[in-house]
Amino acid sequence: KTSSPKCFIITVYPAPGPVPKDQVRLYSMRFCPFAQRTRLVLHAKGIKFETINIHLKQKPDWFLEKNPDGLVPVIETPAGEVVNESVITSVFLDEVYPEKKLLPATPFGKAQQKMMLEHFSKVCLFKISSARRKGDDVSGLEAELKEKFTSLNEYLVKRKTKFFGGDTITFIDYMMWPFFERLGMFEVQHCLDHTPELKKWTELMLEDPAVKATMHSTENHKTFYNNFLDGKPDFDYGL
Amino acid sequence: KTSSPKCFIITVYPAPGPVPKDQVRLYSMRFCPFAQRTRLVLHAKGIKFETINIHLKQKPDWFLEKNPDGLVPVIETPAGEVVNESVITSVFLDEVYPEKKLLPATPFGKAQQKMMLEHFSKVCLFKISSARRKGDDVSGLEAELKEKFTSLNEYLVKRKTKFFGGDTITFIDYMMWPFFERLGMFEVQHCLDHTPELKKWTELMLEDPAVKATMHSTENHKTFYNNFLDGKPDFDYGL
Repeated sequence: KTSSPKCFIITVYPAPGPVPKDQVRLYSMRFCPFAQRTRLVLHAKGIKFETINIHLKQKPDWFLEKNPDGLVPVIETPAGEVVNESVITSVFLDEVYPEKKLLPATPFGKAQQKMMLEHFSKVCLFKISSARRKGDDVSGLEAELKEKFTSLNEYLVKRKTKFFGGDTITFIDYMMWPFFERLGMFEVQHCLDHTPELKKWTELMLEDPAVKATMHSTENHKTFYNNFLDGKPDFDYGL
Repeated sequence: KTSSPKCFIITVYPAPGPVPKDQVRLYSMRFCPFAQRTRLVLHAKGIKFETINIHLKQKPDWFLEKNPDGLVPVIETPAGEVVNESVITSVFLDEVYPEKKLLPATPFGKAQQKMMLEHFSKVCLFKISSARRKGDDVSGLEAELKEKFTSLNEYLVKRKTKFFGGDTITFIDYMMWPFFERLGMFEVQHCLDHTPELKKWTELMLEDPAVKATMHSTENHKTFYNNFLDGKPDFDYGL
């Protein structure tokens, strides 16, 4: 079992003090797939951290000072270093904490994972669900998604590995995972039906301790997301 | 003076052989701002390279095999490693060639440059010029651009450095430069009028040997761009 992070769930909250020594602080939102990337890295590497969940509809001024964009995730260190953006925080943590390296050691290995991530980032699940909500035909968008899944499936078949970076979980798997965890929420789970290796990958990911420590059930994701789309997100849902 | 790369400018061309030892190959397009990022890094670091310019309206099959997205820049090594995407190729080259490091050595230093780049990437110059072409009001988009320039200017003022990473040119300067070189082409040069430190930065950049080796005049950029927008790009323009 991975350690459970210390959480502050407060709607109106004062500026936090400096980050305690020997740990990092994560500014997060419990249902955010981007913040989950950073949470996965923190758990996978066994980094001691505390979490401050940000009420994204009532952002405190001190948070906007740390990240003017107002987005999560943000990482803060005891030295006062502030890093934002999901992939940047994840690479930063992997470089600062040498134990259990998630990125490959070689420049080309790193470039390969970044290229795959760049390619994957063009998958837009939010577009499908907002089109469906409007009553639009989503068959074209679903066909596009299936094509992406087919290419990911082929990649696993060609490499003959369980995960995208080899036979153990690496950086790229954690960066992609939060979107796969939400396939049920987006109601596109059936798009995995013809990509057995990719489906097997999702099953293996579900067994990973960091995934287990950071995940929500599809039911909880759906409830949060529907309230969010209605303009009434409950950031503390399920607590 | 930097070395002049070996160039192949051929409209219909056969698949190239393996990359000669002790150099890398760049697949490029002479007017592409993204490919210019990689060209800047190659020149700045003094890496021996050859260039194959791709006719982006008549992409050869062998090129699409190397990069299914069909975009430049792409880097290929003698070992057959293929890397695409402007920032990924630039980081890769900086990591492989230790001489004249362009990225900072510390994880936080690297993260800072990536965050600045992420922030900068939201500047969309193409939007302004296409809106202007359609006869739309661009004052809102220009105000947005001026705001971005003001924040970059403030950054230089606060840090009291000539360049974005310190008093010498580093990675971030080269990543941003191609878009500043094209301000005249986009007819938004006046947006620099109230940001003197940023303007001074552009003047200092123009003195850099790598910038000199890779740049085109505003006139040539404009001619290429107008033909491009008319659907008749002349990839060899000015040769």
